[in-house]
Formats: sequence, structure tokens, C-alpha cells
Amino acid sequence: MTEPLRVALAGIGTVGAGVIRLIDANRELIARRAGRAIEIVAVSARDRGKDRGVDIARFDWIDDSTALARHSRADVVVELVGGADGPALALARATLEAGKSFVTANKAMIAHHGLELAGAAEAAGTALKFEAAVAGGIPVIKGLREGAAANEIARVYGILNGTCNFILSKMEAEGRDFADVLGEAQRLGFAEADPTFDIDGVDAAHKLSILASLAFGTKPAFGDVATSGVRHVLAADIAEAAALGYRIRLLGIAESNAAGLFQRVHPHLVPLDHPLAHVSGSLNAVVAEGNFVGRLFFQGAGAGDGPTASAVVADLIDIARGEFGPPYAMPADSLLAQPGADTGDRRGRAYVRFTVADKVGVLAEIAAAMRDAGVSIESLMQRGAMADGSVLVAIVTHEGPERCVAQALEKLRGSPSLIGQPLWMHILDS
Amino acid sequence: MTEPLRVALAGIGTVGAGVIRLIDANRELIARRAGRAIEIVAVSARDRGKDRGVDIARFDWIDDSTALARHSRADVVVELVGGADGPALALARATLEAGKSFVTANKAMIAHHGLELAGAAEAAGTALKFEAAVAGGIPVIKGLREGAAANEIARVYGILNGTCNFILSKMEAEGRDFADVLGEAQRLGFAEADPTFDIDGVDAAHKLSILASLAFGTKPAFGDVATSGVRHVLAADIAEAAALGYRIRLLGIAESNAAGLFQRVHPHLVPLDHPLAHVSGSLNAVVAEGNFVGRLFFQGAGAGDGPTASAVVADLIDIARGEFGPPYAMPADSLLAQPGADTGDRRGRAYVRFTVADKVGVLAEIAAAMRDAGVSIESLMQRGAMADGSVLVAIVTHEGPERCVAQALEKLRGSPSLIGQPLWMHILDS
Repeated sequence: MTEPLRVALAGIGTVGAGVIRLIDANRELIARRAGRAIEIVAVSARDRGKDRGVDIARFDWIDDSTALARHSRADVVVELVGGADGPALALARATLEAGKSFVTANKAMIAHHGLELAGAAEAAGTALKFEAAVAGGIPVIKGLREGAAANEIARVYGILNGTCNFILSKMEAEGRDFADVLGEAQRLGFAEADPTFDIDGVDAAHKLSILASLAFGTKPAFGDVATSGVRHVLAADIAEAAALGYRIRLLGIAESNAAGLFQRVHPHLVPLDHPLAHVSGSLNAVVAEGNFVGRLFFQGAGAGDGPTASAVVADLIDIARGEFGPPYAMPADSLLAQPGADTGDRRGRAYVRFTVADKVGVLAEIAAAMRDAGVSIESLMQRGAMADGSVLVAIVTHEGPERCVAQALEKLRGSPSLIGQPLWMHILDS
Repeated sequence: MTEPLRVALAGIGTVGAGVIRLIDANRELIARRAGRAIEIVAVSARDRGKDRGVDIARFDWIDDSTALARHSRADVVVELVGGADGPALALARATLEAGKSFVTANKAMIAHHGLELAGAAEAAGTALKFEAAVAGGIPVIKGLREGAAANEIARVYGILNGTCNFILSKMEAEGRDFADVLGEAQRLGFAEADPTFDIDGVDAAHKLSILASLAFGTKPAFGDVATSGVRHVLAADIAEAAALGYRIRLLGIAESNAAGLFQRVHPHLVPLDHPLAHVSGSLNAVVAEGNFVGRLFFQGAGAGDGPTASAVVADLIDIARGEFGPPYAMPADSLLAQPGADTGDRRGRAYVRFTVADKVGVLAEIAAAMRDAGVSIESLMQRGAMADGSVLVAIVTHEGPERCVAQALEKLRGSPSLIGQPLWMHILDS
């Protein structure tokens, strides 16, 4: 057996401690599979004394995380600090510059700086790996980069944020409202104290832009992801969707075709005969549609210390085996810059829900706006007054261009009949 | 860009033609992802003149497939001939002996001879890859070998035969009988003219033994897979299962623990809240349970020219990238020989269905046999007479050792009250 692969670890929060526990627990098995031992030699974190349930006294302690890049015994640095810039980015740059391999779970950093870092890794002939950055323990980066590599991928999409899926599943199962369930999720540790990145779809957008780049061979374009979250989904929307045979899921969807690169994170109505409708709780799932393989579906735990550590150590095993190539499957400078697609041209069915005042003429006003914009209505449900006296009107459209729905909503903007913003959700094909 | 990876292809049936079509269609994309072109240079098949819808005149034609191993321009041989022994095995041995890489979709050959061939590949420092041998286009070999490599896997299981799943789904959706649906599947090309390997579970057992070896680091033990198929499942069983909240699926299940290596292919009752219950039609799906990653679920097309070609070419891309190690993730001679587990000790719930004569005392006889063997009955359904006057009695047991159910059935064997063999199916936990 050859020399161990020696690891310097930055960040010993939940996931960092999970990586230490995993390498301890599965040490022998990992060595059998990797062909050599994987061994942590140095760590860095904010608080040296904190009790993390793992013994870190056996590792070199380094105060300044950036210095891990130059640790004399480390072959590879694992970054679990987080944040798109700051210490994580400084460490990534320093590590690759030092010609060492770099493994990270940091979706924000890869979404923003992945292209630069991939170029640096390729120039240095070393590895940059980020399996844990998307969908936690599910090997979906590998699935796209290698498993589906023979295919032209037309579309990649999925449930990329476990917090939102936990909240939507709970609202669905218990008929409860968003704010109520969010509070519980925070108490249970399924949602952060500041849940903005999760519930507004930013976290899913980070992951989607990484998947899109891998699937299509295009430059990462996080800034082009049209993003909204689950904050405005009502228990009543979930009930309406259920009555129609759908479940509501926050989906990230990316497509590449002649119209350009389309990337969107948005709550969708998912038909019950689609596997994503059966992904509940904090699970993640990703679908990739290839021109030969058809529809591939991957599901598993999208977060948590164990699953994330599993993905981090899978990357380390690849590195230990010497099996890694360009981070995006092809050289970073060969990734294509594809312009963002005009979403107005997209055709589909939609669910639009209005909260309106309970007075004469409101339905006529909405119906007229839809008609004038050329939106064909498949069904319309009006449910009795809410506690505050308002009324919900939910419309499902026939298939048509998104532009028309946008025009109808624009026309209704500022109408005194409407209370708050309408909620527009797209309906996923089965 | 370096030299192309040059491929010799043995067998140009549906899948072989699919591989040619895929490499033609996605040529440029494959070269971008693999870092070099992949190019077929020579082919061999039974009938040179047959119209396959692809142009093979541009390739060297070799009459004797074994001679592909020594083709001067080929770096790798793809074997799509099939059969556990014979020409496929001769070609595999000759190719690895010649120091060339070998890619195959041949589950029977890998199940029987994988260990020998892996040893030969390792000795020659070349690749032996068989992603297409299990679950068609789903990258589940890679998922276990690499994606979940950091985990101790306790259990791997799934739907490994698309023909059986197609038949069971169709019986379920349309309330039809096995023989009737099998006939239709044969007409549609979803079942072979001789469907024995599929419907009796042998094909699934081949695949299961390959997955078990990869998941557990144990020597392949196809001979130890307890195998039965779907031939004896009645429409009435599917209806009973549905009434109880289950769907019937042919599952391959492998577990490794202190009791030994357990491998079984058998129709199971799958609860509706388990993702395998929602795998319908000819799809395949595999679940792996790791000690850190939790439950990973992979789903996709388990057969067909496109999906199988996708897996074959993914293997070629790995080889083109130089990214391959020992076929079973660890050296073949380090795989452990684990004894088969005693299934009598396994605990679980079961569904047992009897076809009985419609006469006094039959229920008492069955109930007494169960009681005497210590089987605790959770529910018992007796449905009115079938067309032939016989009666179905379906029992669901409480959790208990399988030994007790076996004893009860042994006691009832030969009873004049029973018509045919009882059908014993295990119930999967959710």
C-alpha cells in the first residue's frame, strides 16, 4: 500500500466533525477502497476549545486557515468554512496555487468562483472537487460528470433545498401555514436562524448553476438564475394543488437549447406520477434527461453531517485513487458562454392564485385581464372567505407562452381588487 | 488533444447498434468530456449483411470475435455478445491477456467469471468495466464503487429486472393475469421469446450478486442467491396487497452483517411510502443504505439500446480519461469470502397466500399449522371462490423469524386441502 493521502481540514462545524467521525469509523474500509489510507493531519477552526464530540488534539492545530494551504504534510485541503468569498476563497486560491488538491462543500463559492478555481486547478494539474456542494450525499456531480457523460443533456432539474422541501411537505401533511412550520423547522435544526438563503431559493440557485454547467458544458451563470422561494406559498395553495392532483415542490430547473440557457428556481406544481412528487421531508432529488439514457433520477439526503461527509470523503477517495480530471468534465476555458433564454417564449401550463377582496366584479376583472393577454383558462376555483375576509381565486391555464401570463399579471398590477401579489407557479410536465 | 480511444466492438444487436449510433450522434460532446475522441475501428457480429440501420462498412470487419482482442489498432474491446461463457468469455480473456481494456454489458458473464476477469485486468494494469451489466443506463456501479465509497453499506436492493416490473405494473394497473400480460410484453418486445431468465429472477440474481460484491467488498457469490420469480403471482395477490397498502415488486436484496451474506431475489410487498413502490413499467431502481450517507436511491431505464449504450460509452469515457481502478473498487484478491447467511434467522413480516379447496376445516388446518410453528397472524383474508371453485386465503404475519413460516408451510405440504404451492412473499420495511 502506498503513502496515505494526508488531509488538512478547515472548518470543524457539524460537517467538519462529521468528516472526522467518518474517517475514524470507516478507516479500514476506505483504505481498502481507495488503495491507501486517508488521514487528517491538520485542522483549523474558529474556536480551538469547543467540544465537538471528536478528538482534535491529535491533529496539528493551525490558527490561520489560509496557512493550511502551505502545511508541509498535507496533500489536500478540505474546506468546510462556507461563504462565497472571504477565508474560504482565500484558502481555495492558496491551496491550488500551492499545487495541492482542494475539496469543498461550499456551493456559494463554487457558484460564484468555480470557473476561476477550476482554471487554477487545471493549470496546477491538481484536483478541485465539490460533490458535497450539490444535493449533499447524493453523488449527482459524479452522476452528471461521469455517469451520464455520454449524453447530451437537455434538462436537469430537481429538489435542491432540503429546508424548503421539509417545510412544504410539513405544510402539505398537516395543513399548516408557512410561518408556523418555518418556526418548527428552526427549532428542529432543519432551518437556519436566518433562513433567507434557503427559503428564498438562493441556495437552490447556487446548486442549480453548478449542475447546469456540468450538464451542458456551459460557463456557470449563477447571476442568470431567475429565483424565487416558498415564502408566499399558502396552505390553501397546497390544498388546491392536491385537489388537482399535484404537489408543490421548490424546483430548480435548467435547460439548454437553441433559445439559450434557461435557469429557474421556483415553486412548481408536480404531478403525482412524476417521481419528484414523492420526494418528501428534507430529502433532495435530481433528474437529468439525456438523449440516450432517458430520465435518470437520483434521490437521497441533501444535507446533514453524515451525508455531506460521505460526499466529501468520496471526493477524497477519488483523489487518493488519482481519478480526477477537469472539475467541469472539460477544460474550464472550453466551457461555452451561452446567453440566457428569453422566458417569455417558454410554453407551459401555470397555476396563478390571487388573493382578492370579496366584492362584485373581481372575477370579471381577472378573467378579462387573462383574456386580453391571450391566456386560456383550464380551470378556476374560488374558495370562500379567509379569516381576514379576503377570497382566494386560483386559476390553472392551458398550455401557452409565459409572456401572456406575465402580461395579464402586469395588467392587474395595482388593481384595488387585489390584496398583495398574485402567486404564479409553473406546472411540471409528467 | 491526444490520440482517440480506439474501440473494437463485438456484437451488433440492438445494443451494439445503439453504441454506434450514440458515438455518431454525440461524437463532439464525448470528445470534449473525455478529452479525446472515441472511435470505433473494428466490429464483429454473426451476420455481416444484416441491416441494422447503422453504417458498419466504415469499420474493419472481423469474422472471429476473439480476434478483436488482437486487432492492431484497438485500445479497448466492447463485448455485447452475451452469454456467461462461450465466445464472450473467450474474448474477455483474450482481450485482458493482450493488455487491452474490456467493457461489457454481460451480467451473466460478470456474475460467473467477474472475479477471474478482474484479477486478469489488475494483473495487466488495464480496465475491466461493466456499468451496463446492472440496471442499464443507471450509473449504479459507479454510484456504489465511487459515489458511496466512503460508506459501509449494510444493504443494497432494488428492482433489477424491467421485464418483471413491466409485467407486475401492468397486472396492477389493469387487473390482468400473469400469462396474459407476459404474452403482450413479448409482442411489444419487453420480454424475450424465452423469458425464463427474466421472469424466474435469474437475470436479477446475476445483477444482485454484482452489486453485493461492490457494496460489501465480498467475493461475488451468484450461486448463493436464493431466487424465485413472478410466475406465481396472481392478479388476486396484487389486489390483496393493494388493499393492504402495498405494491408487489420483484426485488433483489443483499445484506452483509455478522450473520453472513444474505442475497435474495423474490417478489416482495413494498409499502406505498417507499420509493420503490413508485417505480413502474420497465424502469429499474437501486437503493443503497450507507452508514453515513443514509439511503441513496437511483432510478432510470434498466434496458433498451439507448440507456445501455449510455452506460457502455460512460465506461469508455472513464477509460479515455485514464480514470479506472480495480473493477470491484479494491483488488480482486482482497475481496472477502463471506459465508451465506441462514435465512431462517431473518425476522420480518410476510404475506402467505394459499389456494385451497372450498370445504369445511381448511382455515382451521392452516391456522393450526401457523400456530404450531409459532407464526403470529396479523390479518387473514379469505376471498370468494375463483372460477375453478378454489378459494384464496391470504395471511399477513406479524414480525417473526422466517424459520417459523417455513415450518408452517412444511407442515402443510401435501395437505389435500391445498391446491398447488402456497405463495410466500416478504414485506419490505418502509
